[in-house]
Amino acid sequence: MMDDDMESGSLGPYQDKPRTFPNMRSKAYTPLIFRVLLGINVRVLVILLLLGLGAIFYIGASTSPIIVFVFTVCILSFLVSIYLTKWVLAKDEGPPEMVQISDAIRDGAEGFFRTQYGSISKMAVLLALVILCIYLFRNTTPQQESSGLGRSTSAYITVAAFLLGALCSGVAGYVGMWVSVRANVRVSSAARRSAREALQIATRAGGFSAIVVVGMAVIGIAILYATFYVWLGVDTPGSMKVTDLPLLLVGYGFGASFVALFAQLGGGIYTKAADVGADLVGKVEQGIPEDDPRNPAVIADLVGDNVGDCAARGADLFESIAAEIISAMILGGTMAQQCKIEDPSGFILFPLVVHSFDLVVSSVGIFSIRGTRESGVKAPIEDPMTILQKGYSVTIVLAVLTFGLSTRWLLYTEQAPSAWFNFAMCGLIGIITAYIFVWITKYYTDYKHEPVRTLALSSSTGHGTNIIAGVSLGLESTALPVLVISLSIISAFWLGRTSGLIDEAGNPTGGLFGTAVATMGMLSTAAYVLTMDMFGPIADNAGGIVEMSQQPESVREITDVLDAVGNTTKATTKGFAIGSAALASFLLFSAYMDEVSAFSHEPFKQVDIAIPEIFVGGLLGSMLIFLFSAWACSAVGRTAQEVVNEVRRQFIERPGIMEYKEKPDYGRCVAIVASASLREMIKPGALAIISPIVVGFLFRILGYYTGQPLLGAKVVAALLMFATVSGILMALFLNTAGGAWDNAKKYIETGALGGKGSDAHKAAVTGDTVGDPFKDTAGPSLHVLIKMLATITLVMAPVFL
Amino acid sequence: MMDDDMESGSLGPYQDKPRTFPNMRSKAYTPLIFRVLLGINVRVLVILLLLGLGAIFYIGASTSPIIVFVFTVCILSFLVSIYLTKWVLAKDEGPPEMVQISDAIRDGAEGFFRTQYGSISKMAVLLALVILCIYLFRNTTPQQESSGLGRSTSAYITVAAFLLGALCSGVAGYVGMWVSVRANVRVSSAARRSAREALQIATRAGGFSAIVVVGMAVIGIAILYATFYVWLGVDTPGSMKVTDLPLLLVGYGFGASFVALFAQLGGGIYTKAADVGADLVGKVEQGIPEDDPRNPAVIADLVGDNVGDCAARGADLFESIAAEIISAMILGGTMAQQCKIEDPSGFILFPLVVHSFDLVVSSVGIFSIRGTRESGVKAPIEDPMTILQKGYSVTIVLAVLTFGLSTRWLLYTEQAPSAWFNFAMCGLIGIITAYIFVWITKYYTDYKHEPVRTLALSSSTGHGTNIIAGVSLGLESTALPVLVISLSIISAFWLGRTSGLIDEAGNPTGGLFGTAVATMGMLSTAAYVLTMDMFGPIADNAGGIVEMSQQPESVREITDVLDAVGNTTKATTKGFAIGSAALASFLLFSAYMDEVSAFSHEPFKQVDIAIPEIFVGGLLGSMLIFLFSAWACSAVGRTAQEVVNEVRRQFIERPGIMEYKEKPDYGRCVAIVASASLREMIKPGALAIISPIVVGFLFRILGYYTGQPLLGAKVVAALLMFATVSGILMALFLNTAGGAWDNAKKYIETGALGGKGSDAHKAAVTGDTVGDPFKDTAGPSLHVLIKMLATITLVMAPVFL
Repeated sequence: MMDDDMESGSLGPYQDKPRTFPNMRSKAYTPLIFRVLLGINVRVLVILLLLGLGAIFYIGASTSPIIVFVFTVCILSFLVSIYLTKWVLAKDEGPPEMVQISDAIRDGAEGFFRTQYGSISKMAVLLALVILCIYLFRNTTPQQESSGLGRSTSAYITVAAFLLGALCSGVAGYVGMWVSVRANVRVSSAARRSAREALQIATRAGGFSAIVVVGMAVIGIAILYATFYVWLGVDTPGSMKVTDLPLLLVGYGFGASFVALFAQLGGGIYTKAADVGADLVGKVEQGIPEDDPRNPAVIADLVGDNVGDCAARGADLFESIAAEIISAMILGGTMAQQCKIEDPSGFILFPLVVHSFDLVVSSVGIFSIRGTRESGVKAPIEDPMTILQKGYSVTIVLAVLTFGLSTRWLLYTEQAPSAWFNFAMCGLIGIITAYIFVWITKYYTDYKHEPVRTLALSSSTGHGTNIIAGVSLGLESTALPVLVISLSIISAFWLGRTSGLIDEAGNPTGGLFGTAVATMGMLSTAAYVLTMDMFGPIADNAGGIVEMSQQPESVREITDVLDAVGNTTKATTKGFAIGSAALASFLLFSAYMDEVSAFSHEPFKQVDIAIPEIFVGGLLGSMLIFLFSAWACSAVGRTAQEVVNEVRRQFIERPGIMEYKEKPDYGRCVAIVASASLREMIKPGALAIISPIVVGFLFRILGYYTGQPLLGAKVVAALLMFATVSGILMALFLNTAGGAWDNAKKYIETGALGGKGSDAHKAAVTGDTVGDPFKDTAGPSLHVLIKMLATITLVMAPVFL
Repeated sequence: MMDDDMESGSLGPYQDKPRTFPNMRSKAYTPLIFRVLLGINVRVLVILLLLGLGAIFYIGASTSPIIVFVFTVCILSFLVSIYLTKWVLAKDEGPPEMVQISDAIRDGAEGFFRTQYGSISKMAVLLALVILCIYLFRNTTPQQESSGLGRSTSAYITVAAFLLGALCSGVAGYVGMWVSVRANVRVSSAARRSAREALQIATRAGGFSAIVVVGMAVIGIAILYATFYVWLGVDTPGSMKVTDLPLLLVGYGFGASFVALFAQLGGGIYTKAADVGADLVGKVEQGIPEDDPRNPAVIADLVGDNVGDCAARGADLFESIAAEIISAMILGGTMAQQCKIEDPSGFILFPLVVHSFDLVVSSVGIFSIRGTRESGVKAPIEDPMTILQKGYSVTIVLAVLTFGLSTRWLLYTEQAPSAWFNFAMCGLIGIITAYIFVWITKYYTDYKHEPVRTLALSSSTGHGTNIIAGVSLGLESTALPVLVISLSIISAFWLGRTSGLIDEAGNPTGGLFGTAVATMGMLSTAAYVLTMDMFGPIADNAGGIVEMSQQPESVREITDVLDAVGNTTKATTKGFAIGSAALASFLLFSAYMDEVSAFSHEPFKQVDIAIPEIFVGGLLGSMLIFLFSAWACSAVGRTAQEVVNEVRRQFIERPGIMEYKEKPDYGRCVAIVASASLREMIKPGALAIISPIVVGFLFRILGYYTGQPLLGAKVVAALLMFATVSGILMALFLNTAGGAWDNAKKYIETGALGGKGSDAHKAAVTGDTVGDPFKDTAGPSLHVLIKMLATITLVMAPVFL
């Protein structure tokens, strides 16, 4: 990970040694795929690229003009993202001491990424083989048989989609980390000049990966869709109907969630084990500040921000968007078929267009954050939150406009002339829901408001009351979001239902699609929100580099402000993510029921929890969430204990560290955390993947012997539903409690209740360390888990039938 | 609560003052009902009693010989309990310093009880009026109309049953507290002589209230049943059918749960706020031992054991048994009707007989715990757990035999000659489930096993890792119980279904009743389990009195051993309680569906969670559990903070306290805790009662306007189901985490990892204080909440239709 000559280097205050930090990079690491590409002659590469683009546009044009539009927007966005990354990389890296620290971070992050994604890709290939076997031996639907889509074709399609989804998800993670390990030092360097410039670099770096992540999700699905369309000759007589096409894409969503789950688990365990370990010895026992160079775990902590927050969040948002697009396409297709709409492609492709516009409006939002003109002059520090919020407002206003435009363009049908307006209102509900979610999260986690202040006050009576108050705050914070989500689900459903779309029997059918459109509305500013989220760890890292390279107080002040804002944006993004997961889960659940009835040739419209087996399925689903959270948290706890013991050992064996006379061994902490988190991510990940399959299969057999048809599928449906509900609540609890503890500590650090070093502060630090695995390991992993359960049940449906 | 002349008293070590503790009792408190009874001439009383008994046996004989059997057993058990209490009260109260402390505890407990039950009875009367209005304006079923059971009759029946249930639940709580505040000092006194005698007094005192609680639940329902039977002329032509009779009893269950909820909330907040407050300042800040007389919050803590553990647990178990009996009677009636069984009374009255046998076998178990012959000689301390376990084994063996007997006696029917054997097997499943539950709880909370040792180890790296490990342990501990419950539900259901009982159409119908029988099997040793549970707080209190009255080390050793055993039995009882709640919830849910279809004259067999409104109901149900737990925990946290501040104030203002030179003001802490817990119990209690009613009513209206019949009832069903599942998991989490933290601390106190006073011990004490509200406030309140939600929806069903 990090070699031993690091030992011989030194930091600023080691006065007896030169002020250098020897290059710790073992060797530059580029993933195989990039190395192969870089090995090719440039001209050949350009020709290949053009050929590829041509092919893409050709199949796009053969499918639908909407696809061409989506391709165009995505490719333009990629050009924008290339501009952003060039702009960021052109900034200076600052003095050598900064570069050396940044190199150490980059090395640790890339090393971990390589090992982690190595394990994940092996598991993905194994799972692909399992899926292949399952699909080769399953039953196919009569429609599929009649359309010539035989068993083996659908097996290869599913596996290919799965592998593509997994690959793209991995690339999304890599891109997130790649830019953050390069941007952090540039932000630190810029902070020496101007707060505004530092902010601009951090947002543009975040914007780069946000655009790549969203763009890749959209273009990946669009390419798959168009390829299958052309390959299978969809809509030609005797072939598959276009409304059934989206069901073939579920493999992509599952691949994306699979990688995201392990990325989030491994990264989350890494980042928080290092953080908790560093804090427990550094802050609580020794009383040294955060990111102090004397703390042996500090580099591991800074590496963690990159692999846990940047890489994992990239993969997470990628799979969110992919899963949500696919489920909305399935529901759009089903509805269009039920209503016999002449050209259903508008309803099916609507989510792709919404996210194309998302790319456009978010880019505008990102560019609206400008540096001051005279970047050499130190401008007074403005509140960066205001600047980010201004950009968000611009994005939201544009999103409302483009959303209305898209509904009118794609969802107008002569059968129900006012349906598009109802759906536009559904989208508005989604956007408003997102806004309220962000507000609620802020209310519960920002120390400007009552809850965190009460929590801080409870720290003054000890560690125990602080924890009790934090747990209660987290549990309580689930109430308002649930009420808001309930209102949005019901109102969007009813707006959709009254849209005028009716099936052959005259029943209104648009309800579920209304909910789907609301979800899309909620995610219609996803790229900008992801930018704000990525901003957080970059600012955090920049602050760490500034602290470690012993920059003057004024520089530290700037990065501190950015870091605090980053904490808030990170917390609000989590509110946003869980809100969209809650809305999307209902869609995924309906998509699952559609899929099962398509496979089983039987209507599957009800999941009756008054049947004991189905009730048991629900019990098991909720239990799965509790057990998963337990394993995720305990993984962090165990690894943090190893870090604590290692740091204590170093402090005892090298007493000079505390007097800046000896250099701590950062590399050992990095190595300990990396190997532990790789080991620890397997158990919860395997639980999440294996248990729905096992439950479905066992109850299928039980159903066979007790004469209950479809029992396996029904029990899995209940498992999915209860797990979703419990997962939403548990994630809300964990995220909010963690965020509130963090900010209660920050509030005390502003000088309240005795300030730094007081007993109240010590209790608050305990709360913060408890909150770390809650908010950055278990909580975000649950977001992924909820959606992965839905996609895994979609893909594995043949096992339960 | 406690008047000021307490100030002038002193304790042992206050050498400058006389060794007396002036009488702190304000005045003897006897509830109104007892005062009225005591005011009557003894002869009149005896005549009244005999007349009452005669009337009871007369209506019993007119109903069914089974009822006569139940009456006889209950009355004999009451005689046994009178013998037990006489035996306990005949023991000496020890030296005056013990009596004085015990008087202070009794005074605090009775004062709180009076105020608390005053508030509860006011709320109960208010609610009774609301129920009356609802029933006077609702629709009645055609059967009810035809049987002459008009609107007003059924309104009065429901309200009367509710009030009787509430009254009995209150009396159960009072009895539990009455005996514990008298037994504690006798156990302390006996501990000066022999461990075995102390154990015997504590178990017999516990046994007294256990028998009263179970006996009262059984006889209350039996009297109501027989009275309604005779009054309404059931089974005479043109009248109500006996199989519909149990539905009239639901008011009794609701009354019992209503009182139990507030008793558990108020008592739980009281006991844990005092405990946490006392520990945080005493143990963590000042480093003085538990129950040290220098701690101003120590009397409040000891009072808390009585009002929180004894009174509340009495009310809790009372309502568990009542709710479970009633739901099993409803299901038995429904099944008997469907199968056209000639004499259905066996199936309906089966639960009453099971619990009558419970009284008999548990009494045998209680008496099997004997003192040594020469009580004057100090015998070597035996492990009290072994003695209690031996009694439990005796009880279980007898329970299996009597259970088999009851099934053969009551469930034998010529239509399905082997059905009784299947049901006996269901009962066996229940007994085994109870046993496994107790084992799992022990595994996760006893420091002989891996989990608690790991938790203790995590304390050595700080407060933060201790909390993370405890939370993970608690979350993880939900898995095995859920698997066990799932297996028992499914296997009992299938045993019942294959019992050979079929309805007119030939469908097997015994499934649900099989689950009901398994639940009864689980609860068939309830009285003995409650005895073991009551033993805990009595031993805890005795230890406190010994510590406060500064008895020699050898005495303290004996009470310490008893206290440790009490902690284990308390934890295992919670496992038992939540297990039976989980099994019972499925029955209550089915009873609710039966009730709704009886009211609405429509079949109501399905709750389809794929409908958005119903999904939202589920979301709201789970959210209710999270919010309720939040409010229960934060109530403890807030009150504990007040205690901490008060104790700190006393230590600062009276520096002599720590040198035994000044006496702390115990009364102020008692007063603070009492008033705070009365205030704090209202919010979570009101939430639990109001929210299902509001949700049901709102969705009924929504259903009316959107044309969905029965929407209100269906949404409430989903709310109930999701709340039950989340409630079971949350209660398991809270109980186990709390118990494990407590025992991890105890494990360190045995000398492991540095022992008392080490940093690991401090971290473990933090964990223990966090666990206190989890395991003794929120957790047990959730047990009650789960069953109260079921009974409230049963009683309030007319609102949703």
